[in-house]
Amino acid sequence: MTLPLNPNMKATFPPPVMEARRWIEGVTFPPDRPLINVSQAAPMEPPPEELRAALAEAALNDPAAHLYGPVLGLPALRAEVAAQWSDAYGGDIAAGEVAITQGCNQAFCAVMETIAETGDEVILPTPWYFNHKMWLDMQNIACVPLATGPGLIPDAEAASRLITERTRAIVLVTPNNPGGVEYPAATLRAFFDLAQERGIALIVDETYRDFDARTGAPHDLFADPDWRGTLIHLYSFSKAYRLTGHRVGAVVADAERLAEVEKFLDTVAICPGQLGQIGALWGMRNLKQWVAGERAEILARRAALEAGFGRLPSWNLLGVGAFFAYAEHPFDLPSPELAKRLVTEAGVLLLPGTMFMPEGDRAGGCQLRIAFANIDAEGIGRLIDRLAAFRP
Amino acid sequence: MTLPLNPNMKATFPPPVMEARRWIEGVTFPPDRPLINVSQAAPMEPPPEELRAALAEAALNDPAAHLYGPVLGLPALRAEVAAQWSDAYGGDIAAGEVAITQGCNQAFCAVMETIAETGDEVILPTPWYFNHKMWLDMQNIACVPLATGPGLIPDAEAASRLITERTRAIVLVTPNNPGGVEYPAATLRAFFDLAQERGIALIVDETYRDFDARTGAPHDLFADPDWRGTLIHLYSFSKAYRLTGHRVGAVVADAERLAEVEKFLDTVAICPGQLGQIGALWGMRNLKQWVAGERAEILARRAALEAGFGRLPSWNLLGVGAFFAYAEHPFDLPSPELAKRLVTEAGVLLLPGTMFMPEGDRAGGCQLRIAFANIDAEGIGRLIDRLAAFRP
Repeated sequence: MTLPLNPNMKATFPPPVMEARRWIEGVTFPPDRPLINVSQAAPMEPPPEELRAALAEAALNDPAAHLYGPVLGLPALRAEVAAQWSDAYGGDIAAGEVAITQGCNQAFCAVMETIAETGDEVILPTPWYFNHKMWLDMQNIACVPLATGPGLIPDAEAASRLITERTRAIVLVTPNNPGGVEYPAATLRAFFDLAQERGIALIVDETYRDFDARTGAPHDLFADPDWRGTLIHLYSFSKAYRLTGHRVGAVVADAERLAEVEKFLDTVAICPGQLGQIGALWGMRNLKQWVAGERAEILARRAALEAGFGRLPSWNLLGVGAFFAYAEHPFDLPSPELAKRLVTEAGVLLLPGTMFMPEGDRAGGCQLRIAFANIDAEGIGRLIDRLAAFRP
Repeated sequence: MTLPLNPNMKATFPPPVMEARRWIEGVTFPPDRPLINVSQAAPMEPPPEELRAALAEAALNDPAAHLYGPVLGLPALRAEVAAQWSDAYGGDIAAGEVAITQGCNQAFCAVMETIAETGDEVILPTPWYFNHKMWLDMQNIACVPLATGPGLIPDAEAASRLITERTRAIVLVTPNNPGGVEYPAATLRAFFDLAQERGIALIVDETYRDFDARTGAPHDLFADPDWRGTLIHLYSFSKAYRLTGHRVGAVVADAERLAEVEKFLDTVAICPGQLGQIGALWGMRNLKQWVAGERAEILARRAALEAGFGRLPSWNLLGVGAFFAYAEHPFDLPSPELAKRLVTEAGVLLLPGTMFMPEGDRAGGCQLRIAFANIDAEGIGRLIDRLAAFRP
């Protein structure tokens, strides 16, 4: 390229999911062994018919569905999130403390832009969510890995030793992507206390909250009247309502922070898409029971996955939950090479742990992420069969 | 705020359109003198019924309308843009040289992220488009103003004197927002030659191309086989097809650049909204005649606006075209104060020139932008009446 290239972009790795898609290009899968694609955490089915009908109705008859709206989102959707979150977490969240974004990835970027600049540091437990790492790399913000070890639960005490004067935030994803594990309330509380004490932000991404196996509030942070000084919460409407293609996410933060977030969103988005927001609001108001059924199905698949690992005694299931299983494989092969061979030799597409770990971290080479949510219990059985039969 | 705040965000001004919206909050407009809102370049009507029906049909019956798609957009839409642009500009653009974004603002941010980092410089003619300035401020990229003087046409020779070793790009918006003027083909060619010679990028934002008063290609840059080394082209589907609420824009650039753009879009967007892309594609394939009618109507409004300025002899119309008139007012009042008084005293909402100019530039205080596209010829007459009657 003759034109200038931002060196931070050059240092940013390409999108892992797109890279994995390229592994299956040109590969023929025999009819009796079709591809099992467990590479992406995405519903493969459209939303329920009533929601689709609500979107169609709005597209036809609601002029506002096609026009610019407020930068921070539809007031009714912001109010609905505030009310449901207040109820779910036993807290007190105002509509003005909710912003709607073009997906939860954008929520993360917008929030991070308000917090950190070139040369600052942000702590991410490993394995991490690769898009978080990519944003930090692009912005030349140092991504400080916090190793989690067995169980994949990060430790606040260990995190405290990584904090420097350039540290601006700690980011937790729970239930975790890619690890699947649901962080205990006590873990979140310990991180909150640490962040509060050190004057840094605690960003909690609960994209998969609707599929948590536990009942009740997963943490009590919003019940703390001081949450505003420390906590920033991220959410996605994509998974619960199958709205991935509409790009709708949310941020909960204090109003002063959202005034800064608004600058970013005005510049990068102008406003979130209107139809997606209409769908998200319709879903929040009408699909509670349906989402409960979806959760039950995901938990059944999770149980099938866990049971299936009983047939893989040489594998080590490190974490399972949300849409993911994260496991150590038993082979003497680096995970990227293994992942590519699983495509052609087992008809399985999954992501290697190296995509979720710092470069050079050897653990990533032994690990794989399985996004099992798209395959039913029977399909999970077939997946386990293929992994069990694989010989490198 | 107790939490860390990126100082570059703090230095970034808040969204002008949202600020202007606040000026009308709580103001009562008498029934015989309703508000004339010429603050934002946005269609106030939904897309034509056939397009709405196509969106509704897709929402109901096309599962892919609700699912993730490729980061760089729907292949069919990328191919359509490539084909229509190749035809319109007499060039040779491949589908792989087109990326679809969540609106044209995002197209700008994505492209700029691949080009410039903290400490670099980018040249913008003044008056500039404020969201471009905001992105550069957030990223701590120096925004170097290129004064245009009477006629609002930037001069490549003058630009050449602003280029330093940190300059990474020149950004041109034609037809211009806020100035309205259509840059001559020779101007674009001179800037292209300059950018090529100096090894920097020329970013041309043609959001308003469908409303250019001239016929034929507005420039010949895509006909140059070397365009890939220098030119990056931005477009919005919002204006022509009234899809503002769906957020769909486009970038045309060489494929190597788009691989970098893909990293940004994967991280900030994952993918553009599917329904908006379906609508944009449907529009490109079916609404050519309808868009021609829209253009004729906008050109009629432009003529009404120009004629109206004949009744404002003490005003100076600096530029008119696309959706905008940009004018010097005759009052001894800074334009922000004048704009606020026009709300309460004349029932007119427009934006002061200070929103489009470097801080401290005195010209901005004498200037106003009128986004006239939303009001018909009769409404434009009433707008002129009110401006003519205003006495500070």
